[in-house]
Amino acid sequence: MDELGQLLHAYVDRIEADLRLWLVEPLTPPTLAEAMNYCVLGGGKRLRPAMVYLAAEAVGNGPPDEMTRRAAVAVEMVHAYSLVHDDLPAMDDDTLRRGQPTAHVKFGEAMAILAGDALLTRAFGVLSATGDNRCPALVAELASAAGSAGMIAGQVADMNLCPVPPGLEGLEMIHSRKTAAMIRASVRMGAICGGAEEAVLAAIGNYGESLGLAFQLIDDMLDATASAEELGKTPGKDARWGKRTHMEVIGPARTRELGRQLTRSAVEATKPLGESAGKLRRLVALLEHRTH
Amino acid sequence: MDELGQLLHAYVDRIEADLRLWLVEPLTPPTLAEAMNYCVLGGGKRLRPAMVYLAAEAVGNGPPDEMTRRAAVAVEMVHAYSLVHDDLPAMDDDTLRRGQPTAHVKFGEAMAILAGDALLTRAFGVLSATGDNRCPALVAELASAAGSAGMIAGQVADMNLCPVPPGLEGLEMIHSRKTAAMIRASVRMGAICGGAEEAVLAAIGNYGESLGLAFQLIDDMLDATASAEELGKTPGKDARWGKRTHMEVIGPARTRELGRQLTRSAVEATKPLGESAGKLRRLVALLEHRTH
Repeated sequence: MDELGQLLHAYVDRIEADLRLWLVEPLTPPTLAEAMNYCVLGGGKRLRPAMVYLAAEAVGNGPPDEMTRRAAVAVEMVHAYSLVHDDLPAMDDDTLRRGQPTAHVKFGEAMAILAGDALLTRAFGVLSATGDNRCPALVAELASAAGSAGMIAGQVADMNLCPVPPGLEGLEMIHSRKTAAMIRASVRMGAICGGAEEAVLAAIGNYGESLGLAFQLIDDMLDATASAEELGKTPGKDARWGKRTHMEVIGPARTRELGRQLTRSAVEATKPLGESAGKLRRLVALLEHRTH
Repeated sequence: MDELGQLLHAYVDRIEADLRLWLVEPLTPPTLAEAMNYCVLGGGKRLRPAMVYLAAEAVGNGPPDEMTRRAAVAVEMVHAYSLVHDDLPAMDDDTLRRGQPTAHVKFGEAMAILAGDALLTRAFGVLSATGDNRCPALVAELASAAGSAGMIAGQVADMNLCPVPPGLEGLEMIHSRKTAAMIRASVRMGAICGGAEEAVLAAIGNYGESLGLAFQLIDDMLDATASAEELGKTPGKDARWGKRTHMEVIGPARTRELGRQLTRSAVEATKPLGESAGKLRRLVALLEHRTH
C-alpha cells in the first residue's frame, strides 16, 4: 500500500461497510440492487468520502458520528452515479471503468440509467433518514454541488452542449464544476458534520476547490502518459475524443506549474485551521505525487 | 375548463410561478436551463403538486406556507425527471409527450439524461434551501418514493428488468411503485408541511396509495380508447409495446370495477380527517370521471 492508501486506509473499511449497510433499501428489485452494488462496490480509492472524514476531524472534536458516516456515503453514491451516467453511450461512451466493464455494458443501457438515478436518489435518502438537524445544510450542499450549476454543468460543458470559452478559461470552467465542485462539497459536508462555523467552512471550501482543480490536472497528466493497466480505464481517451485538456492547451510544463500553484493554494487555505488540518495538508502532498 | 381543472386552478398559478422561481439555479448553462424548462414548463395538469396543497390544507390551519410551496415544486420536478428518463430511447423510446417532441428528440439524448438528472437533484435542493426543520422528513419521503424501492423499482419492473409475478399481482406491483408511490408521497409531503401527526399521515398515505392505483387504471383505460389528440401522447402504445395493462389482463369490465373499489378505498381513508378533507374526496370523484 502506498502512502496515499495508508492515509485513506483509516476510513476505507468504515466507508465500505456503510455503503453495504445503506446503499440498497428493502424491497429494491434484486436485479436493480445488483446493478447499484456493481456501480458502487467495484473499487475506487474512496477519496471523496475519506475527505468528508478528514474535514470533519479537522474542525470537530472526537470521533466521527453517524451523520459524518452518512455524508461520506452520500458523497460516494453521487460520485458513482455520475460515473455511470457519464459512461453511457449517449455521453462519453466508455466501456471500461476501474478495469471492469461499465454498467451499461454489463447490465444494458436502461438498467444503467435507472441504477444511476437510484444512486443519486438514495444519496439524499441516506442524508435524511435520521432527522438530524444538520440534514438541510448537507442536502443543500450536495444538491448544489451535484446540480445544474455544479457537476452537471461541468458535464454539459465538457460535452460541448453549451458555449465554452476558448483556452484555459474554458478548461477551468469545466474542471471547477465537473470535478472540483464535488470535492469542495465533500470537505464542506465533513466540516458541517464537525460543526464548523462559517469562516472555517469557507476556508475548507477554498481548500477543496483548489485541491479539486489540482486533482483534475494530475488526472489529465496521468491520462496522457499512463497505460490502461495502471489506470484501469482506457488511456489517452481524452485526446482521442477531442476533449480539451491542460496538457493540450498549455503543454506539460505549464500544466505541472499550474498544478503546483493550486496545491500551494490548497495548503494555504488550511492555515486558519492550524494543527488540526495536518492530514488535509498531507493529502495534498500525496495527491500531488500520485502515479495512478 | 372542466371541474377537475377548476379544483386544481386555485393552485396552478402558484405552482407555475414557483417552478419558474426555483427551477433554474444561477450559473446554470443556458442550454441546460432551456432543456430543464422545456421538461417542466411544457404543460401537464400539475396534479401531484396540487395534491401537496390539498393535503396540507386538509390537515393544517391557515394558508400554505413556503415549505408547502417548495414541496409542491419538488414533487413536480421529480415527476418531470421521471418522464424525461422514461421516454429515452433505451427505455420506452417515446417521441411525443403532452403533444410536443420528447426531450431527447428536441435536445438530444445526452442533454435529456443530464436535464433529468438536474431536475431530480434540484428537487432536493429546493426542499433544503431554507433550513426548515420539516426538511429531513420531506427529503426522506421524496427519496423513498422516488427511489430504488419506489418509482424506479416500478420502471425496472415495467421494463421486465426484474422478475414480475404474472397477472394482477404483477400489475399491482408495477403500478403501486411506478405511479402510486409518488402520488402517496405528494399527499404525505403536503400533510408533513401541514404538521400532521403520525395517524393522520398514515391515513393520508392510504388515500394516496388507493388514489394512485385508481389513477393508473383510469390512465390505462384512456390509453386503450382515446385518440392521440385527446391524450397528447401516442395512444395504444402500451398494447403495441407488450406492456401489461389491466385492460389486457382482466378486461374492461373488471378494470372498471377495480377502479371503483380503489376510489371507494381512497374516500374511506379520508374519514379520520372529517370535513377538512372535502377537497381530497372531491378530487377522487373528478379523477374517476375524467376523459383525458
